[in-house]
Amino acid sequence: MKIAYLGPPGSYSEEAVKNWDSTAELIPVDSIHAVAKCVSDGKVDHGMVPIENSIEGGVTSTLDLLIHDFDLSISGESVLTIKHCLMGQTNLDMSKITKIFSHPQSLGQCRNFLNTILPSVELIASLSNSRAVEEMMNGKDNTIAAIASERAANIYKAQIIKRDIQDNLNNATRFVLLSHVDHAPTGNDKTSLCFEYDGDAPGILSESLREFASRDINLVKIESRPNKVDLGKYVFFVDIEGHRTEDKVMAAISVLETQVSKIKILGSYPNQ
Amino acid sequence: MKIAYLGPPGSYSEEAVKNWDSTAELIPVDSIHAVAKCVSDGKVDHGMVPIENSIEGGVTSTLDLLIHDFDLSISGESVLTIKHCLMGQTNLDMSKITKIFSHPQSLGQCRNFLNTILPSVELIASLSNSRAVEEMMNGKDNTIAAIASERAANIYKAQIIKRDIQDNLNNATRFVLLSHVDHAPTGNDKTSLCFEYDGDAPGILSESLREFASRDINLVKIESRPNKVDLGKYVFFVDIEGHRTEDKVMAAISVLETQVSKIKILGSYPNQ
Repeated sequence: MKIAYLGPPGSYSEEAVKNWDSTAELIPVDSIHAVAKCVSDGKVDHGMVPIENSIEGGVTSTLDLLIHDFDLSISGESVLTIKHCLMGQTNLDMSKITKIFSHPQSLGQCRNFLNTILPSVELIASLSNSRAVEEMMNGKDNTIAAIASERAANIYKAQIIKRDIQDNLNNATRFVLLSHVDHAPTGNDKTSLCFEYDGDAPGILSESLREFASRDINLVKIESRPNKVDLGKYVFFVDIEGHRTEDKVMAAISVLETQVSKIKILGSYPNQ
Repeated sequence: MKIAYLGPPGSYSEEAVKNWDSTAELIPVDSIHAVAKCVSDGKVDHGMVPIENSIEGGVTSTLDLLIHDFDLSISGESVLTIKHCLMGQTNLDMSKITKIFSHPQSLGQCRNFLNTILPSVELIASLSNSRAVEEMMNGKDNTIAAIASERAANIYKAQIIKRDIQDNLNNATRFVLLSHVDHAPTGNDKTSLCFEYDGDAPGILSESLREFASRDINLVKIESRPNKVDLGKYVFFVDIEGHRTEDKVMAAISVLETQVSKIKILGSYPNQ
């Protein structure tokens, strides 16, 4: 089985794929968009993409490509605990660090550490954490550090300066598996869907959410994304407990269909 | 009046401040966090920060600092139409471009243009658009381009290669003015608040939203952010029409207070 992920090797996405299926053939690509395109074009069986982090929130590029750009299904989910390390070419004293390379989301996840311990260090955005380590190791300036996983430090032979620098020890990222079809019912499932309204959305939203509540369907998650046409118009991204083939889920969705202007059932999959 | 904003000069934030008050003394700082800190420490009268973009959605660092880090009020809002330009040291043929510098949010706002017209160009993240232009102009490689505003092109004397490359011609960003106190009622106001629940949030959310709907209080916006403690636990960020001192708004909020575990009224201000 071939699974595409956001590379290069050493990324948290690679770790999520390995946890999911240790025997899969791993195909690293350059962007979350490219992961979805590989699945859509049939070049791989599945793609693993981050969708939500406990500190930074929704991964907007994943949400947007599910909503707008591809007709793919979610067939599984996987939660990975994220532990960030500060690393350098050498085991540098922290007071000597001048710049730090990392992905903006990781910089955000270490914001308190950076603001309090390293307030005057220059932060440089990278397109991925493993690329940040690669660039730091290939550079000539040994006062530059990077933030990435311990795995990335090992792969690129960087020295770890400090472990667990994320602001919250519960830092975790939820990944979803993108596929052509979703998962058969297992008895303990989750369904992801997104929808939008023509009119004044947030007003009708309370009505729509009641369709789930009144049928004892638990809402696990709700997130809003811009509809990309008008400021202040949203697409709602919702996870509910239950499989889309269950009677009460089908009943709630069929009422929802009468309230919304667009709806997309992204798939049902086992609850992790 | 002193107003802090996310600099350097040439940024969209600077443009938002100038539109708001053309006579204010403008204080550029390095990050959205630093804008809030300047206001909190009394070094400036107000701070202007982006809170929402019509394509990329909520500006998470702004939402998070309002929820978690500072006790500041929102006293105003301002909407700026965002027009991105592709620029270089010279008016380069697009086929010659090798790399593009820009803030990740701006790269996101031009994703379709980049994926279709310049699919093989390397994208390099910068911490701000104006910094991207500055770095591009100071570099030796004239095959590097940057994405930023026409204003930034003028300030840094960059040549515009193509105008209006954002994916959507309605690309607009909403800014809010951070202050120590909010705004007195004007008769056409908006109120921002955020709240979270102890238990199973999305289930109770439909009840809370009904408190507004049943009183004919229009919900303008709803957004969820992680509570930063557990994956899958959220803080809801809501904008409603009306001033917090109006009877029906006070009544709805007093019921809400019995449902939530935490609530923060971020302020009332004139509807723009």
